[in-house]
Formats: sequence, structure tokens, C-alpha cells
Amino acid sequence: MSADRNRLDSLALPVARDVEAAATRIASLVHRTPVMTSRTLNALAGAEVFLKCESFQRVGAFKARGACNALASMSDEERARGVVTHSSGNHAAALALAAALHGTRAWVVMPTNAPRVKREAVAGYGATIVDCEPNVADRERVAEQVRQETGAELVHPFDDPRVIAGQGTAAWELLDQVTGLDAILTPVGGGGLISGTCLATQSRSPQTLVYGAEPLGADDAARSKSLGQRVGCEHPRTVADGLRASIGELTWPFIRDHVREVITVEEDAIVSAMRWVWERMKLVIEPSSATVLAALFTGRLQADNRQRIGLIISGGNVDLDALPWLETR
Amino acid sequence: MSADRNRLDSLALPVARDVEAAATRIASLVHRTPVMTSRTLNALAGAEVFLKCESFQRVGAFKARGACNALASMSDEERARGVVTHSSGNHAAALALAAALHGTRAWVVMPTNAPRVKREAVAGYGATIVDCEPNVADRERVAEQVRQETGAELVHPFDDPRVIAGQGTAAWELLDQVTGLDAILTPVGGGGLISGTCLATQSRSPQTLVYGAEPLGADDAARSKSLGQRVGCEHPRTVADGLRASIGELTWPFIRDHVREVITVEEDAIVSAMRWVWERMKLVIEPSSATVLAALFTGRLQADNRQRIGLIISGGNVDLDALPWLETR
Repeated sequence: MSADRNRLDSLALPVARDVEAAATRIASLVHRTPVMTSRTLNALAGAEVFLKCESFQRVGAFKARGACNALASMSDEERARGVVTHSSGNHAAALALAAALHGTRAWVVMPTNAPRVKREAVAGYGATIVDCEPNVADRERVAEQVRQETGAELVHPFDDPRVIAGQGTAAWELLDQVTGLDAILTPVGGGGLISGTCLATQSRSPQTLVYGAEPLGADDAARSKSLGQRVGCEHPRTVADGLRASIGELTWPFIRDHVREVITVEEDAIVSAMRWVWERMKLVIEPSSATVLAALFTGRLQADNRQRIGLIISGGNVDLDALPWLETR
Repeated sequence: MSADRNRLDSLALPVARDVEAAATRIASLVHRTPVMTSRTLNALAGAEVFLKCESFQRVGAFKARGACNALASMSDEERARGVVTHSSGNHAAALALAAALHGTRAWVVMPTNAPRVKREAVAGYGATIVDCEPNVADRERVAEQVRQETGAELVHPFDDPRVIAGQGTAAWELLDQVTGLDAILTPVGGGGLISGTCLATQSRSPQTLVYGAEPLGADDAARSKSLGQRVGCEHPRTVADGLRASIGELTWPFIRDHVREVITVEEDAIVSAMRWVWERMKLVIEPSSATVLAALFTGRLQADNRQRIGLIISGGNVDLDALPWLETR
């Protein structure tokens, strides 16, 4: 952990103008994703609801934003040495894509038991996969080893100011596409997306409140907020595979100070919200994204005085052979 | 059949300006659906491909257009007597919605074995469901009986000039959203959509060729075209439930004279194209819509000299408990 400790100590929190700079920097690299609406959804929620569909983003998730901003922020010299990360999820594919777009190398440390389809996605973008044991200590150890051997720079999935600023460009765009939002609601995993969202609203729409949603089975952000200190979630149990990480050292201050509330939702509420969006809105969204809709549908985000609500739909990467409403049968 | 014979004899084929009139008439009733693109799709197809996503249309299918145009075209007196149709698919829900939007009644004749979810959708829009036996003769008999008893006007799913003109507004919009299309490809069931598409291109973009795609197991349009006379498909066998109808008397002249070619695709090509769109483009589309992508992916629509191709994605109504790639396991 000492390498990561040193890395974190050297980093400053990103500020609001970093999001605007990121938006300019990555404009030609990522998609400006559409905002979708539904009369039926509005009627159910008792509010005007706007879905910012990062499911349509490159690699199928908002993670392309942070990864591209990290690469685009580096000096030519840094970038030429390549990048390394440890992830088996959307950040891995995003960093692989970002490196390919910048003509440099990426090493992705993945546990040997990661799903074949995820390994193929990462390899498909030309990244080098480095095996590790399926535990946090080993993946950090292997990533550090790759860093030392190759000179590649670690791009952490969320505890990186460039990544946080990049993720904030989703809300930045949303605030450009939809005016007068009373609130924006994002899923919370490691906290990169919601931290960037806080920065985006600060500079672009200070009256817009930021809420988080997370599974009850991985509720470290909600517990941290109620305790007033950051606690992790050792054994996350949730279908929302993108939200199993615990919030980070850099993202915690945003969650503590700027996020109005982190709403927790049960597994069955996540699955039924996900299914509702597929069935009624014809959008393929992943379970992580469904948490924000579950927060609306369960009434835990009170809609009164919040007439216009933006939801960040974080991604659409789902195993179509293992849909959660079929798995439980 | 004599009532339907009389009805058909009294109808004139719609003409190009009917589509423009329909577009104006239904503008406030239906959605202007988005056009989606994908770099990966373009690379696979060797062309620039534009998906006109009627899956995002009201009731989840382009059928809302024709039904709304039929209702909006009636005199106040006609409309007040209500409408009747026989359908267990998207047209039933579309006519129920259109009637509700116009404050009048709809009777929908459905076989007693129609899926519960479809009956509920129709009933949810306030239409009256009238049971019939699950065969064509009985459903036409019952619809005629309803018509005589109530004075309601029959709105046929495709053999109706108002419906054809209404369906043509999807291509009309697409030609407004995307310029310089070399071809438009639509699924072919009864032929309402492709006939309206012929009219839309005639007036708006005469150089754009119109192609159809249909399942090999319901290939009446392709066979009719090669025989030079309209033949039906008695026992359609296809996962594309929206394409089991045979082409109509009013739609046949369009298919015969204006459609460049009707491409047939196998069931496994339909299912794998459908899955590809869900997985890679994050769009929930129904099997009928996947036929046009299957025509591209199988190379049966030659892409050379057709650089810019529009595909009408007809709808997104799918039973999420019975996905075709899981059913075959």
C-alpha cells in the first residue's frame, strides 16, 4: 500500500474548472450521449426525469470519459511510457480504449478468474493483460510491479483527479442539454462519477443538488456519510457489479461535503427497475445504473420540490446470458 | 371476406403527398424518434448505417404512426363512432392509444390465446377487447360483427391508405434527419411500413432505393416479387412475430413496383443480429427489427455503391422472460 499512499499524498483534489477543461480535452474522443425521457416514467416518479445515457458512451459506460481525460492530460513523455491499472470492469476497457486512441500501451491487471468476455474486451483494444490473484492486495502489488518495470503510469479507477474531472463531464453535458435541473442522481461505487458530478454542478448550476444511490449490500458511502468518517465495505453483496468498490480517499471529501444524501436500495428494487427500463424505455442498462431509478421508484428520493431530476445512467454492459430477473427463477 | 372485399374495392392507393400530410397531422401525437449510429456497425457493414429507432416510438413500435394518422384523418362524426381492428400485436396497442388520444373508443378483436401481457397493454389504453378464435376467418368475422353492431370503423393493420401513409412518416423523418441516403431497408410483414417508405422516398429523395428484409420462414413478399404475383404464406415459421402476416392487396403494388429487392434471412441470423444490437448498441429491439441488420450482416444487402444506408428499426416489444438466444439452449 505504500506506493499507493505516496501516489495519493502527491495528488490534489480536482476543482470545478478541471471538469470544463476535461470536457474540451475529450470532446473529440468520447460521445456526447443522448438524454432520454418517458412520459410513463415522469408519471411514475411524479417529476420530470431526464436520463443521461452513458450506456451509449464508448465502451458502454461513462468510464471512457475519465480514462480519456487521464491520457489526454499527460505530457507526451509520460504518455509514451504507457498506463497501467487494476480493474476487471468498465474502467479496464475504458483505459485500454483511451491508450489505443492515444497510440500508447496499456497494461491491465486482472484476476485469473475474471470473465472471459471482459478479458476479450480489454484485449480487443490492444491492451496487455497481466494476471493476478483475485484479491485487492495482490492486484495492487502486481500493478505496482508493472509500473516499476515499464515506467507506465497508474490510472486508478476513481482515486485520480484526472479521472474524477473526466467523469464529471457527463453531468457537465447534461447541464448543457437540460436546463433548470433541481437535482442530479448518480450511482456510487468508488465515487469518481459522483465527485465529478459535484464539480460540474458547482461551476455550472450551483442550485442543482447532487444525490447518490447505492445498493444496500455495498452501502459504504451511506454509512460513511452517517458516521462522518470513511468506512469501507469488506464483503459487498450486490448484483450491481460496478458498485462493489468502496469509496476512495479523494472521492470521500466530495461525498462528505457536497452530496446531499446517499440513498440505499435493495437488490430486488434494482432488478425490477432495470427490467422496467428495458421493457418500457427499450434501453439496455446495467444493474449499477438501475440503482438511481430504484431510488426514484421506491420513493426514497422525495420528488416534491424537485421537479426536474437528472439521472446518470452509468452504463449498459450486461451479460445477456445471465439476466438477473431470470437468474433468480 | 366479402365485407373486406367491399372495403378494399372502395380504397385508393395512397400517394406521396399523403405522407407529408400525415407527418403534419400526427406531429403532436407521436415521437420524433432518434437516429442512432455505431462505428463498430459501420465497420462491420462497410457502410455508414443509420438506425431510425422506432423502438422508442409510443407503444414501442412504428405502428403508432399509422394508427394516429387513421384517427386524425377521420371526420369528427366518423371518429365519434370509434374504431375496431383485429390484431394481437403492436397495431392493437397503437390503435388503442390513438383512440384514447382522440377521446374515442376502440374495439380490439384478439384470439383467446393471445399473451396476457398483450391483452393488458391494449386494455391499459382503455380499449375493449373482444375475444375470437385463433384463426383469420374468425377474427375477421368477429371484427365485422363489431363494426356492424357499433358503427365503429375498421382500421386494418396495413391494408388501409391512412395507415400506409402514417407508417411512411418514419422514413420521412429519417430523410429529414440524415441527408444523402443511398438506400433505406425496412422489415416486411403485411407491407404497410415498406409501402409508406416507398412513398416517402418518392417525394423526398427519389434517388434513395428501398429494400425489404423478411424471415425465410415468412417469405411471401420475396416469393411474390419473384413470381410477379401476390402469394401468401400459410404457415409462417419465424421468431419475428411482427412479420408473420402476408402482404396485403394495397401494399403489394408498392412491393412489386417500387421495392428494389426483398432480402430473406434465416432465423439464426435474425437472433444473432438482435443480440448484437442489444450487446453492442445497448438498444432493446424486437426480432422483426433485427431482420434488416441480418440482411446487412449476412452480406445479402451489398454495401458497395450504397455508402449511406438507413434501417428502420420497427419496434422494441420483446418478452424479457423468453429471449430467443436463451430459448434455444
